[in-house]
Amino acid sequence: MKTFTEYLYFETKKKREYRNITDEVEEIVKKSGIEDGMALVSAMHITAGIYVNDAESGLIQDIDDWLRRLAPDGLDYRHHRTGETNGDAHLKNLLIGHQVIIPITIGRLDLGTWQQVYYAEFDGQRKKRVVVKVMGK
Amino acid sequence: MKTFTEYLYFETKKKREYRNITDEVEEIVKKSGIEDGMALVSAMHITAGIYVNDAESGLIQDIDDWLRRLAPDGLDYRHHRTGETNGDAHLKNLLIGHQVIIPITIGRLDLGTWQQVYYAEFDGQRKKRVVVKVMGK
Amino acid sequence: MKTFTEYLYFETKKKREYRNITDEVEEIVKKSGIEDGMALVSAMHITAGIYVNDAESGLIQDIDDWLRRLAPDGLDYRHHRTGETNGDAHLKNLLIGHQVIIPITIGRLDLGTWQQVYYAEFDGQRKKRVVVKVMGK
Repeated sequence: MKTFTEYLYFETKKKREYRNITDEVEEIVKKSGIEDGMALVSAMHITAGIYVNDAESGLIQDIDDWLRRLAPDGLDYRHHRTGETNGDAHLKNLLIGHQVIIPITIGRLDLGTWQQVYYAEFDGQRKKRVVVKVMGK
Repeated sequence: MKTFTEYLYFETKKKREYRNITDEVEEIVKKSGIEDGMALVSAMHITAGIYVNDAESGLIQDIDDWLRRLAPDGLDYRHHRTGETNGDAHLKNLLIGHQVIIPITIGRLDLGTWQQVYYAEFDGQRKKRVVVKVMGK
Repeated sequence: MKTFTEYLYFETKKKREYRNITDEVEEIVKKSGIEDGMALVSAMHITAGIYVNDAESGLIQDIDDWLRRLAPDGLDYRHHRTGETNGDAHLKNLLIGHQVIIPITIGRLDLGTWQQVYYAEFDGQRKKRVVVKVMGK
């Protein structure tokens, strides 16, 4: 059994941003030399998410609108009594999820035709980190 | 360490459909010969989900109602400018999630009494695929 | 390859309760002797969740408020025709998710500074169970 771990770093220009990281994850899997197994892609922050969906710009805007509708900013969150102002970003993280597992088959990400891996930033403009851990043989 | 991979295929009659796939997943785990480990069950589409919950028909209807309330169809999604009409199905996929990991103990799915694995179709009436990857010893 | 499995038991005093289980999970990982791999933490019930977020009491209250807003109790769920009264708890489970995978690096949970693992009870006051399965080397 082999394992391989690498970290991706992000510092987005905008507060909320959606970045396709499929190629970076695929690159890490190649470097791992693992032919069959799983790759865990997991945000190491509580105000950012990882999800799998379409690389279509209209849909990405729909996802952003939807997250803002179901986990709105501008509310008087109790969390803000600590001095923070990002209560909404925590809820967006819980809604979209902070991790996915990508199956690896014959050395490649075993994804469907339209499945792309996204890093979703909800409280950016500072350094953030994602762990990619590959496990298999 | 052993790995074992199989694909399940679905072509639902209705646009939205919920199908209990616990037995199919259990069957794949048996075939794998893996006694201890994990089984990843992951939809290979961005308009279908996988979740674990109850096999109770009233609740399944409640889940469908809830998904339609939080990720409604009939909205003017930007994604529809591409000619697609399934923006809601993408959001339902993100809400319910597209994958679960089932622990395997003594060669069986290590699930609680009421936990059943479901394939949730949100844009059916065409061929869809789920990957089941088992990893362990 | 090594695997290690243990179960955590909960019987909360309140119907809804949020419990930080990071230390229990870390303890299980230590006992496993696994230095590099993944720990699956998965609720074995369909009315309880597992999530990763902040150990800040205001935010925990915000999460509870948010779950009640998006998956309200007091509705006439079809599931209640079976005699059950916990339709909302099933939806809260689906919203927050019932499992997370924690990467393990150098024998420790490879979490970000603020990431804590939570057990979220939505229909408590009875015995519940969480499986923790560690896999790696």
